[in-house]
Amino acid sequence: MTGIKTDRAERIIVLCREIATHTEIAGEITRRFLTPPMHDVHRLIRDRMIAAGMTVRVDAIGNMRGLWPAAAAKSPRLIIGSHLDTVPNAGAFDGILGVVLGIAVIEELQGKRLPFSIEVIGFSEEEGVRFNKPFLGSLAAVGNLDAEALARKDRDGVSVAEAIRAYGLDPAQLPAAVLSDESFAYLEFHIEQGPILESEEQSLGVVEALVGQTRMQFVFDGQANHAGTTPMHLRRDAMAAAAEWIAAVEDYASSHRGLVATVGKVEVYPGAGNVIAGRVTASLDIRHAEDSARNTAVAALMDAAKRVSAKRNVQVTFATQLEQQAVPLDPSLTDTLYIAAAQAGFPSRRMTSGAGHDAMILAPKIPSSMLFLRSPRGLSHHPDESVLPQDVEAALATALEFLTLLGDDKSKPKDGHA
Amino acid sequence: MTGIKTDRAERIIVLCREIATHTEIAGEITRRFLTPPMHDVHRLIRDRMIAAGMTVRVDAIGNMRGLWPAAAAKSPRLIIGSHLDTVPNAGAFDGILGVVLGIAVIEELQGKRLPFSIEVIGFSEEEGVRFNKPFLGSLAAVGNLDAEALARKDRDGVSVAEAIRAYGLDPAQLPAAVLSDESFAYLEFHIEQGPILESEEQSLGVVEALVGQTRMQFVFDGQANHAGTTPMHLRRDAMAAAAEWIAAVEDYASSHRGLVATVGKVEVYPGAGNVIAGRVTASLDIRHAEDSARNTAVAALMDAAKRVSAKRNVQVTFATQLEQQAVPLDPSLTDTLYIAAAQAGFPSRRMTSGAGHDAMILAPKIPSSMLFLRSPRGLSHHPDESVLPQDVEAALATALEFLTLLGDDKSKPKDGHA
Repeated sequence: MTGIKTDRAERIIVLCREIATHTEIAGEITRRFLTPPMHDVHRLIRDRMIAAGMTVRVDAIGNMRGLWPAAAAKSPRLIIGSHLDTVPNAGAFDGILGVVLGIAVIEELQGKRLPFSIEVIGFSEEEGVRFNKPFLGSLAAVGNLDAEALARKDRDGVSVAEAIRAYGLDPAQLPAAVLSDESFAYLEFHIEQGPILESEEQSLGVVEALVGQTRMQFVFDGQANHAGTTPMHLRRDAMAAAAEWIAAVEDYASSHRGLVATVGKVEVYPGAGNVIAGRVTASLDIRHAEDSARNTAVAALMDAAKRVSAKRNVQVTFATQLEQQAVPLDPSLTDTLYIAAAQAGFPSRRMTSGAGHDAMILAPKIPSSMLFLRSPRGLSHHPDESVLPQDVEAALATALEFLTLLGDDKSKPKDGHA
Repeated sequence: MTGIKTDRAERIIVLCREIATHTEIAGEITRRFLTPPMHDVHRLIRDRMIAAGMTVRVDAIGNMRGLWPAAAAKSPRLIIGSHLDTVPNAGAFDGILGVVLGIAVIEELQGKRLPFSIEVIGFSEEEGVRFNKPFLGSLAAVGNLDAEALARKDRDGVSVAEAIRAYGLDPAQLPAAVLSDESFAYLEFHIEQGPILESEEQSLGVVEALVGQTRMQFVFDGQANHAGTTPMHLRRDAMAAAAEWIAAVEDYASSHRGLVATVGKVEVYPGAGNVIAGRVTASLDIRHAEDSARNTAVAALMDAAKRVSAKRNVQVTFATQLEQQAVPLDPSLTDTLYIAAAQAGFPSRRMTSGAGHDAMILAPKIPSSMLFLRSPRGLSHHPDESVLPQDVEAALATALEFLTLLGDDKSKPKDGHA
């Protein structure tokens, strides 16, 4: 990995950091859907897109869209996108990096036309912060932004439709935000937001699927009692039951490849040091790229909860709060991306995404792929979020190789850039 | 246990329930140290003591004291006592039963003088509710109520000394509250406040020791992280560490006779279902009748916390908040009580007390003993707290046999009552 030229990567990082200065709250990076600083971001990106020769528009949900035409009319279209909004007090790369990398790809073409057009999209909303509903931008792009979503209100009582108008856009034009029928593939660059690539000293990950997720609440009901006068064998200790179960959750997930399971919220009642716990509530968040593996795990962990409770004469109940299917990405496109990385000289790792991304919304509509860039220290949604220049260079080189392979695949005359 | 006459036991229970009607809060039993309803309780008890032929006084801390003289002047003195105050929303028997049983013992003597005098004491304060310090009554009786205690203030800003004056007593007279030098033994009846006697279908327990106690706080520091993007092997999950430790605490205590260990308070940060716990604080309450066994347990559980933390790269720290030595009761007096119960026809169980009692304060000063009565459903500090008439009869019969044995032991002419 030594000797990699990172000039163009450094320029990409500089632009991401410049975009990060446009924020709702001075001193931190907070830029929610269609808030005033988004105008500045749109202007910055528009200028870069136009300079690269793209045709630019902002659609009715606020997605920033630049089109690089194909060599011929009515050609298929590749979409490259990610999002422009941030969580509160965010880092400078989550989302933005994917958009800026998309523009950089067009710049690197240096005027060359391909057998397909490329539309670079900066989705206006992915994090779900302002309206407590994520993916507003990509949902509009696939025609799935419904009336319920448009009626949602932010903490100031402003609806999504009103926010659109206040930004200078027209909700009536939302149908025109839907992706062209010519779209044949989606590519999203994104920082990993996790520690896997770093722990394996790899630059890139090719995402095969976005995990499905089940969220549940478990309630253990025992008997609150005196910590001094109740001998161990006569206790019905809800915390002891919950603790054995939490250990079983960790053990199960650790021994099942690709599974993550987390008990992140635990509340104990009455919660006094000298009183045996009468009741414990505990969350379970469980994710896997295969729904069957996740469902098997959920069943096993419900059984474990019953088992550890029964032996202590504790009652356990559980309720499912969220159940979200896994989203597989397109195998053929994913293979192409994997090969492109290798041919570009940056062997990648196949992996799953444990978090949601715009690709999750696009994948059911058009063949989709994602390329992860290593997240130093696994940090994201944090001001210290960063990215390494060598990894940005790897992603850019991979993308250019990917274009070549796609062009070959379209059986057009080979004129790719490598 | 069939065919036991319970008339006198029923009268004792009726008096306890009558005393319970004198409360700070209508509809529940709440009677803190030297609050207005304590005047009514003193009046009730004074009347009963005088009717039984006792000499009555209220000492300067508010202890209600009745003396039944011996056959001869300058004889040794047996103290029988327990407390008159309650926790908020209490039951009718915790403390009070021991005082009423003491008076009943004198009534059952029917005028007979013994080779020792008997002083029945209703201690004014044991629960520690009003001034957040327990045992004010018994501390005064052993001369250990210090200036710090007298200066403590309740939630209304009233000091202990002021409360004494407001009740019509004089703090300057506190030296006269100290037990007579003639005192040779202390006996306290108390409900068990735990489930052991009931689980073994026994009426009475002879207490050999009041357990020592260590209270600690453990802090597990891991790394908060994304529940979806952080694979199991790269986590530093503070909750998983705490859970394995809590299971180890239960396991250790369950396999060490006489030990109880409780993790009753657990707090998880940041405490979101989709975030791996970065920090967990957990209480430990650990008790045993032998200090060495308790100290060994504390060391073992600190080691366990280090072990489960180290393997997850979690840091653990701990702090001791309370360390209280075990208080052994007098072996000879305890044996006598055990024999008395057997001779009265109520075989008892030797046991330890997991909670504190006035006997804990008196034991270092004079030979002390305690007799536990079964607690139905183990309930105490609860409106449903109760006691069985047959068990009250058993305690009364045992006490009368105990007086006989003590009289024999004093090598005086045998004139005991059986």
